[in-house]
Amino acid sequence: MNAVISYKQKGLFILSDKSKQERSQLLISREHKSEDTIIEVKGTRIGGSSHTLIAGPCSIESEGQLRTVAKTLKQAGVTVLRGGAFKPRTSPYNFQGLGEDGLKMLKKVADEVGMVTISEIMTPEQIDVAADYVDIFQIGARNMQNFDLLRAVGKTDKPVLLKRGLSATLEEFKFAAEYVLDQGNDRVMLMERGIRTFEKATRNTLDISAVPILKQETHLPVLVDVTHSTGRKEIMLPCAKAGLAAGADGVMIEVHPNPPQALSDAKQQLNMEEFQVFWQELTNSGLYNK
Amino acid sequence: MNAVISYKQKGLFILSDKSKQERSQLLISREHKSEDTIIEVKGTRIGGSSHTLIAGPCSIESEGQLRTVAKTLKQAGVTVLRGGAFKPRTSPYNFQGLGEDGLKMLKKVADEVGMVTISEIMTPEQIDVAADYVDIFQIGARNMQNFDLLRAVGKTDKPVLLKRGLSATLEEFKFAAEYVLDQGNDRVMLMERGIRTFEKATRNTLDISAVPILKQETHLPVLVDVTHSTGRKEIMLPCAKAGLAAGADGVMIEVHPNPPQALSDAKQQLNMEEFQVFWQELTNSGLYNK
Amino acid sequence: MNAVISYKQKGLFILSDKSKQERSQLLISREHKSEDTIIEVKGTRIGGSSHTLIAGPCSIESEGQLRTVAKTLKQAGVTVLRGGAFKPRTSPYNFQGLGEDGLKMLKKVADEVGMVTISEIMTPEQIDVAADYVDIFQIGARNMQNFDLLRAVGKTDKPVLLKRGLSATLEEFKFAAEYVLDQGNDRVMLMERGIRTFEKATRNTLDISAVPILKQETHLPVLVDVTHSTGRKEIMLPCAKAGLAAGADGVMIEVHPNPPQALSDAKQQLNMEEFQVFWQELTNSGLYNK
Amino acid sequence: MNAVISYKQKGLFILSDKSKQERSQLLISREHKSEDTIIEVKGTRIGGSSHTLIAGPCSIESEGQLRTVAKTLKQAGVTVLRGGAFKPRTSPYNFQGLGEDGLKMLKKVADEVGMVTISEIMTPEQIDVAADYVDIFQIGARNMQNFDLLRAVGKTDKPVLLKRGLSATLEEFKFAAEYVLDQGNDRVMLMERGIRTFEKATRNTLDISAVPILKQETHLPVLVDVTHSTGRKEIMLPCAKAGLAAGADGVMIEVHPNPPQALSDAKQQLNMEEFQVFWQELTNSGLYNK
Repeated sequence: MNAVISYKQKGLFILSDKSKQERSQLLISREHKSEDTIIEVKGTRIGGSSHTLIAGPCSIESEGQLRTVAKTLKQAGVTVLRGGAFKPRTSPYNFQGLGEDGLKMLKKVADEVGMVTISEIMTPEQIDVAADYVDIFQIGARNMQNFDLLRAVGKTDKPVLLKRGLSATLEEFKFAAEYVLDQGNDRVMLMERGIRTFEKATRNTLDISAVPILKQETHLPVLVDVTHSTGRKEIMLPCAKAGLAAGADGVMIEVHPNPPQALSDAKQQLNMEEFQVFWQELTNSGLYNK
Repeated sequence: MNAVISYKQKGLFILSDKSKQERSQLLISREHKSEDTIIEVKGTRIGGSSHTLIAGPCSIESEGQLRTVAKTLKQAGVTVLRGGAFKPRTSPYNFQGLGEDGLKMLKKVADEVGMVTISEIMTPEQIDVAADYVDIFQIGARNMQNFDLLRAVGKTDKPVLLKRGLSATLEEFKFAAEYVLDQGNDRVMLMERGIRTFEKATRNTLDISAVPILKQETHLPVLVDVTHSTGRKEIMLPCAKAGLAAGADGVMIEVHPNPPQALSDAKQQLNMEEFQVFWQELTNSGLYNK
Repeated sequence: MNAVISYKQKGLFILSDKSKQERSQLLISREHKSEDTIIEVKGTRIGGSSHTLIAGPCSIESEGQLRTVAKTLKQAGVTVLRGGAFKPRTSPYNFQGLGEDGLKMLKKVADEVGMVTISEIMTPEQIDVAADYVDIFQIGARNMQNFDLLRAVGKTDKPVLLKRGLSATLEEFKFAAEYVLDQGNDRVMLMERGIRTFEKATRNTLDISAVPILKQETHLPVLVDVTHSTGRKEIMLPCAKAGLAAGADGVMIEVHPNPPQALSDAKQQLNMEEFQVFWQELTNSGLYNK
Repeated sequence: MNAVISYKQKGLFILSDKSKQERSQLLISREHKSEDTIIEVKGTRIGGSSHTLIAGPCSIESEGQLRTVAKTLKQAGVTVLRGGAFKPRTSPYNFQGLGEDGLKMLKKVADEVGMVTISEIMTPEQIDVAADYVDIFQIGARNMQNFDLLRAVGKTDKPVLLKRGLSATLEEFKFAAEYVLDQGNDRVMLMERGIRTFEKATRNTLDISAVPILKQETHLPVLVDVTHSTGRKEIMLPCAKAGLAAGADGVMIEVHPNPPQALSDAKQQLNMEEFQVFWQELTNSGLYNK
């Protein structure tokens, strides 16, 4: 039988011209599920009435580095520890991350202080490796449309943090999340991390309007990454406030014990003191619900 | 004498490679003036510790239209009434505004209810016409680099609201304001109104990071236009909140008694009821200081 | 009578929702005029079967500077001499051009060698000043939607070169030209000069697809500016060839006797020798019809 | 030993601040290899003095569909047949391609008529599957920074066609290619396929300046995809000519026996007759060297 005909018989092709009515049947949509999705991981709740801060270094570099950051974060009340072990780097000659060694450090330190871990995976194969150490899988901006990876995390039972692509439309972002939900995993959170524009004053342009649109059109938690969107320490606090005021469920920020020595993102990670100021002012603003 | 030489003798050309030190000598800069510029117009203060809402229809269409809007706004405590009389329109066959007739209506109605008026001017010649009716001159996005117009309003004693160009960098935006201050008029406020990006879900992309950057680098009041940046009624409130949380001194929004009948921007103006909800939620948010 | 009603009675507002049929009635459209518009100025023809090169310095700096360039150009067979006298500059402290003094130099030198002159005007008032010296009015990218300026040149009998705005859509570009034709002047040529994108390897991004679209949808001559679009000398020749291959009627390029000493655009103007190579290779390519 | 220290000892981190001198040591660079890389596949040469057309349907739908296209192409002198079997689709509910069944059809038909095959792979695992049927691996725009995939094809002995990401800078594009060469495979060709901009008249914006920049800075063949960059049939021919005039080594275009019935890209594939016109005019232009 002709393959085209078999696809047509399955009725799959019809969806390529999905009407508005059909679109509302997307699993990510508010029409499909009206209440907010709240993701629980080891006692931490993401989404709903409280806010979440995800913090930690860009790259995992050593246990000592992680421990310094984690202790400070935990003491401040932060519950989710991030750290990159598999690093997507523009150049093959840049530091590519410590891999599984890094993940082991992440878990060890997180267990010591009692935090939830999140780290980026870049291929389906890394799922099995990372599953032993990581509580939340992060899909990075460059992999937002790595559809096999989306399907693969969709088959796991771990929460997924999906970052918006560098120039992905909100339509494409939502469909990327749909790939995960379509495989049975509905514990997905969306992260706006800045889009590419002509503006050179910031690393990327934080698309603040993405927050209310995603909150209104989907039931998933929405967070803003104020490190990669701005690339400028002095505006991370106001942008974090803006994100919360716009309805975001949380914020991600990079923190490093000694940013100038960092193996990646040296210029835009907060040091311990800068983090304390950031966190104090954010929680004092009245915009952040612990 | 050779003209080039005369310019070189004046030392003007040296500034084309302005160093960082020289840049800090810009009249708009915080280095030049550390305290916030507060613009007072007929008892209304823009900038400083309180916030300002500028509202009104996209185009002035009739006295009745204006009066309906102005009464509602005034009753709500809004003090600045906007309305376009000279309209920059993409097509020469679109409604081009009522011109001086419109400005007369604007002043008449504003005087009745006791509001400050703001309206866009598009050429130096319109300054004399508009000066009789308008308290604040607006320079639109398409004229942000109409340098003769900038110089011309710089020679007046009226406050100027300068909108960011459709794809102007913040560097260009600041220099455009410098053109006005350089002529002696330092009562300039800056408005972020959305930039052009690939995203189609919104009319433009509100560049929220522009707010803290402009607040930190200049002493001028900074406002956000949530109508033209978003083009979507359902996200204007969260974007206004985000603007204030990011440090903006005020918000601009279009309000019309009967948007579907409007001669311009029919889809994105709030009607009276929508305005009431917007205003109530904004002031209840704790982010807006009256 | 209510002003809105009077506008509605005139039927003007209907055009704001111009249907496709109505759009074909635009004066710029191929539907309105099927044959190519050919603009004749002092024996030089722009448009039709032959190509045009417009060349000269970014800014007019002195008679000597202009004469050096003009002699070389004329000898090479170039017939249109450009040079900026009113300069739109980002900063008020940059060189702003020699004004009328510069235009006098431009005309004097052009008359000596027998060339057509083109220079940018930035305000309606400059039309009268420039009319004595300039054969073609240039409207710059920053003024593409300076509607009063468009209307003003539309009332003159001189050809107009209209540059595309920094982030203007082709739709907006075409309507800007329509403003000129609507006033009675149909001798308009369109210039693609690069648009703003995220790419940093070039000053702007030459939108090559603009050329065939504008040629197909309008009857006006279309040219490409390879200086401002690329900002890189080493790719100006291939981009000029690409423009011609895509159907452009001509090319604009900046040439200066001593670029490093230029008062503007020092890095991207060709010197005399670079121009000779550019011109020889372009005419040898078989793509340029003299 | 501390992991950071071990990385630092290896000296790898130094490259993250690669100086210009070091950059010239990239394997893709002209400095590393001055002569053009020419890729030979089954008697077809890509790069060098002759041009290559890659054509075929967006998606492989059936043997009959492929055979119709392939016969026409082969008769016209086209030697490389494209067809998608693994399709990256925005929505999980769109047609996802026939997978290995499709690749079998592709090889069968290509063998019948004597053509080289190219098809996209999306994961490292698909390499083994595809290797039996495909002569050239295509890496799509969405996977340009799927670094594991880049490394994986870098370990094969098949040529790789790498498409530029939707908003990838040329810098990022070159480094993506470097990932492949760094693994030992230097038979890589680069394809400009349009970037994301604000312009709505075209599907994407063909960045023509990418062609001469990539040709000057790398030794790899550079091709332009006129289907995905324009999305408009009526400008594909002028854009293909522009690509060749700018120095491209070849062109890719989608051809389908019955585009309105196509399971993907229905609006932008050429039918048989349109292809004949396109091909005849391109080869008659003098710009295409067979």
